[in-house]
Amino acid sequence: METISENACFGGTQGVYSHTSASCNCDMTFGLFLPEEAQDGPVPLLWFLSGLTCTHENAMIKAGAQSWAAEHGIALVFPDTSPRGEGVADDDAYDLGQGAGFYVNATQAPWSSHFKMWDYVTEELPNLLEQNFALDMKRQAITGHSMGGHGALTIAMSLPGRFRSVSAFAPISHPTASDWGRKQLGAYLGDDQSTWAAHDSTLLMREKGFDGPMLVDTGTKDQFIDLLQPEALAEAVNTRRQQAVLRLQPGYDHSYFFIATFMEEHIAFHADALYA
Amino acid sequence: METISENACFGGTQGVYSHTSASCNCDMTFGLFLPEEAQDGPVPLLWFLSGLTCTHENAMIKAGAQSWAAEHGIALVFPDTSPRGEGVADDDAYDLGQGAGFYVNATQAPWSSHFKMWDYVTEELPNLLEQNFALDMKRQAITGHSMGGHGALTIAMSLPGRFRSVSAFAPISHPTASDWGRKQLGAYLGDDQSTWAAHDSTLLMREKGFDGPMLVDTGTKDQFIDLLQPEALAEAVNTRRQQAVLRLQPGYDHSYFFIATFMEEHIAFHADALYA
Repeated sequence: METISENACFGGTQGVYSHTSASCNCDMTFGLFLPEEAQDGPVPLLWFLSGLTCTHENAMIKAGAQSWAAEHGIALVFPDTSPRGEGVADDDAYDLGQGAGFYVNATQAPWSSHFKMWDYVTEELPNLLEQNFALDMKRQAITGHSMGGHGALTIAMSLPGRFRSVSAFAPISHPTASDWGRKQLGAYLGDDQSTWAAHDSTLLMREKGFDGPMLVDTGTKDQFIDLLQPEALAEAVNTRRQQAVLRLQPGYDHSYFFIATFMEEHIAFHADALYA
Repeated sequence: METISENACFGGTQGVYSHTSASCNCDMTFGLFLPEEAQDGPVPLLWFLSGLTCTHENAMIKAGAQSWAAEHGIALVFPDTSPRGEGVADDDAYDLGQGAGFYVNATQAPWSSHFKMWDYVTEELPNLLEQNFALDMKRQAITGHSMGGHGALTIAMSLPGRFRSVSAFAPISHPTASDWGRKQLGAYLGDDQSTWAAHDSTLLMREKGFDGPMLVDTGTKDQFIDLLQPEALAEAVNTRRQQAVLRLQPGYDHSYFFIATFMEEHIAFHADALYA
């Protein structure tokens, strides 16, 4: 693991690190904020999974999360959204290939040799973090934005007991029925749509739900709201009687200004679960 | 004036606007955050002047300032750091020309036809803001980072009565004696160093000081601290008995992580003065 940078930040350290990923078969970069408390022992960890076109960097510099994580003594990890590099397959479209891993393990060429973001985020990176940093992996929570909200919700529901709480900002909520989803799941997983269901929050909510509290915010003026389909997830959450707070925030769009606005409440929500 | 974008943000609106600038003889772009309270009437205004290489955008998306401005009902304006465009003179160096206006009125070719940032920030943009937005121009404060900290301090001291408070993050404090300053003041203002003194915070502090409270933060690990020369400003502040809080923050560097960390305190500092 190589240290790219470390900056003092809200009493802790905002680091950027790279490492050779066995899952993705390339070098991967991630951001990690450690609060001051990590100097004295392991701290809880909140994952932030980012959206289409983002790297590890966007949320790290634009979401204003470190302020609140420092207040609660929580670490933040910001993974990249896909494998990257010259040898890694890509597509001209912004929503496929590099920057658009969708948090799945691709099974189809040309994607299957590198695009293993599910394994990377659920196995390889957690192990790397546990080995190298003062993190209490028994106290994890997860959130994300857009494609990353999709990742947070699907991963949280698929790994019962791993995360104490889950939240999302403007998640892609029903990708098997959206142009943000059908294209990518088809490309990465192939035509057999039965393999897609494991990567659809609405379907997972109908099937199993989440064993903890859930918070989802979406802006009423989100320019992509028809692709996000919050109504599908809301129907599934309500039918299941899932413990959840689903909010439509008046006037907000899909931008990081929306994320930053509600970050304080999301981190406080996770802190309640992490310190329960 | 043209609206480039408006995003809901912390209950208010983060806007980006462009206009034809008479001072700079080109189109200029700025960011303006209006808190929710601006819907009901004029609100106080805090200026944030940015550093070398920045546009209006950097602080707007990376400083985390809107959160605290919203809490105090204060507007934020983020001007660009120089004139820009194909017809505008530039230099290969990052610290001269576009992105490096130094908040002066250039008198020397090739800069003098566009580089009038002093007039732009002290006259043209304030007038434009007053005419177009719900701002109480009797309640203004000013801050900035690095070159922008230099701008904030020099402008505040040069316009007594305009700003109720001034602060700075890692300001270039003594440019007439620094490689961040001598090169640019020479290029923009010419060889007669008597014209440079009006743009040096340390010299202005010795000469006149500021008629209000002052707050300055610099990181002890700032990689540019030898260029910033906080010790020169500190000596002048102390000799004058200027009302001021000068802080060296242990471990912090020159980055936006440093700015974001102390933004809450800077905005609270200005709020005290703006609502006094």
